[in-house]
Amino acid sequence: MSDANKTTGLQLRSLIRKSGELELSLAEVAVPEPGPDQVVVKVEATPINPSDLGLLLGPADMATAKATGSGHGIKVTAKVPAALLSSLATRLDEPMPVGNEGAGTVIKAGSSDAAQALKGKTVSMVGGAMYAQYRLLKSTDCQPLPAGTSAAEGASWFVNPLTALGMTETMKREGHKALVHTAAASNLGQMLNKICLEDGIGLVNIVRSPEQAKLLRGIGAKHVVDSSAPTFTEDLTQALVETGATIAFDAIGGGKLASQILTAMEVAINKTATTFNRYGSSVHKQVYIYGSLNTGPVELLRAYGMAWGVGGWLLTPFLQKIGRPEQTRLRERVVKGLKTTFASHYTRVVSLPEALDLKNITAYGKRATGEKFLINPNK
Amino acid sequence: MSDANKTTGLQLRSLIRKSGELELSLAEVAVPEPGPDQVVVKVEATPINPSDLGLLLGPADMATAKATGSGHGIKVTAKVPAALLSSLATRLDEPMPVGNEGAGTVIKAGSSDAAQALKGKTVSMVGGAMYAQYRLLKSTDCQPLPAGTSAAEGASWFVNPLTALGMTETMKREGHKALVHTAAASNLGQMLNKICLEDGIGLVNIVRSPEQAKLLRGIGAKHVVDSSAPTFTEDLTQALVETGATIAFDAIGGGKLASQILTAMEVAINKTATTFNRYGSSVHKQVYIYGSLNTGPVELLRAYGMAWGVGGWLLTPFLQKIGRPEQTRLRERVVKGLKTTFASHYTRVVSLPEALDLKNITAYGKRATGEKFLINPNK
Repeated sequence: MSDANKTTGLQLRSLIRKSGELELSLAEVAVPEPGPDQVVVKVEATPINPSDLGLLLGPADMATAKATGSGHGIKVTAKVPAALLSSLATRLDEPMPVGNEGAGTVIKAGSSDAAQALKGKTVSMVGGAMYAQYRLLKSTDCQPLPAGTSAAEGASWFVNPLTALGMTETMKREGHKALVHTAAASNLGQMLNKICLEDGIGLVNIVRSPEQAKLLRGIGAKHVVDSSAPTFTEDLTQALVETGATIAFDAIGGGKLASQILTAMEVAINKTATTFNRYGSSVHKQVYIYGSLNTGPVELLRAYGMAWGVGGWLLTPFLQKIGRPEQTRLRERVVKGLKTTFASHYTRVVSLPEALDLKNITAYGKRATGEKFLINPNK
Repeated sequence: MSDANKTTGLQLRSLIRKSGELELSLAEVAVPEPGPDQVVVKVEATPINPSDLGLLLGPADMATAKATGSGHGIKVTAKVPAALLSSLATRLDEPMPVGNEGAGTVIKAGSSDAAQALKGKTVSMVGGAMYAQYRLLKSTDCQPLPAGTSAAEGASWFVNPLTALGMTETMKREGHKALVHTAAASNLGQMLNKICLEDGIGLVNIVRSPEQAKLLRGIGAKHVVDSSAPTFTEDLTQALVETGATIAFDAIGGGKLASQILTAMEVAINKTATTFNRYGSSVHKQVYIYGSLNTGPVELLRAYGMAWGVGGWLLTPFLQKIGRPEQTRLRERVVKGLKTTFASHYTRVVSLPEALDLKNITAYGKRATGEKFLINPNK
């Protein structure tokens, strides 16, 4: 039976019950007929990103995880601490599909020109529910890949690449000329480093070990500062003087790092100040927290005057703010660079049942730098 | 000799020496001739605001203060901790004049129409260096007072009134419909409460004692929440549900209050949410810190998704942002309301030498709610 005749396919589901139990399973769901401006894509590659794990595992204690069944009948359960259930009220007892992005082949297309133009093409996709064999979606949520780019190469086209581009775009839109990035040796950090080298943007990479510093210097990073070094504060200040960076994107969140960056920015700015300003420099200094490797409280010491801001940064509101034509420009830049600037590397390719294997959950659940899983739902 | 013939006048000076010594004194300075668009004002009333104390006393340890001399020859010295000198580099060994705002009579005017129109008028002024007998300034830095409004009534026309108006203006410009204010029983807080009642804006007043709550309710405040009450969190959340406030102006700074406000805003917003959003609500929640009654670190627990911001807020950059025509509209609103909405009350009126009396410095240096000094330099 050809794919176009398939009437059902597997879809991974994450369910948190009111009783406090997480249940992961594979459901057999109907493959719908596309509407005029819709297509059905056979999903061939979809990554497990840190940003997928929040929805997939929720706040469950995975040390309590148990697996039953096998193949399509595999089921994983784990306990969610009772105290955390109230924050999940709107998802309780609702099976949630998972998977932000992916790529595959368009097997059915609606009657519109835009949909028909995608028929048979290999496309990248965004919109959730990608951990499935088939995905119905609007043609505008698909981006055709250049000839010779595979679904595996196009799977991680959205979350990391557009987040990295979103950082340099936000920097420009908010009037800064260079930026700081923390946890800078990550996949995202390496991508950001390549973008900044391409675009001639000053980037201060903050890493947490000499090994990570070496890795980044190896791919051409000019300003690398190691927070584990005794000279961290001086090194950071010097890099800020050299680049003029006054905005930072922080993946760590908890602790004093955001405040240390703001302090170093203020010191760097004041190195060239000539008049006394009792409220500190009038140059606005900004830290956006986009990740939470440290989930503890952020501590702000406020030794940097009054012209500062700290806040959350998230890709989706950023994209809404810039609007569709700008989004298209960024998407097109990404797909052209999927083998170079925006290339991702995977340590494992797994099927949907394998994605629910306890050993694999333990591996990708660590969110470790360098460990990245790709699901091929039609493997 | 009439005032117009005076060639010199007293000016209060604050000097921090490289050696780490604060020195307050009165200098005899020339009264300059005004340029075409300038006027000379005989200063009759100028308040000692918390925002003046940073420049006046710096970070000196006033427990070490000593006074010598008397009358115009009075001199106060105190020690500045050595560790704090580096942050003062640009003011060291420079005698600084002090005093943000004041009011008085125009005794000389330049040739321009704008300057001539002010001659003999009682005007409010802004621009620093007000702790002086005479002040030369641009005619645009003066605002003529309505007939029957005295210099003492017009002295505190700028810092508190425009800060309070700046809060409701910022609220509107950033797309919020109601606001939260902390340390809300202050002079500024009472003013903000009157503005919000006049303009029909929802205001959540956070105070720190039952007495302060009673004071605010006595002047008509609708939403008063006492952070010392065991039901604080529930009370705050309920007030946020009722008003829909998603922006706060915080005078306290250090500690967990900013984070508690953001958490309560998120809970209030989610009371009406129907769909699960793994990143929290998409409604932007903002806290601006404009004071620092608690100088300790700000602790942000981030239990409020990704759509949040915390930052410094200061009057001067706000005024620059809104531009001159809007500033004029706000200034005119203030001078019309100096006996009602924007009235200030003083506990003491002192001369320039009396402002340097150690007992008085101790009293106004406490920054206590209810204690407010006015200087009459020509007393």
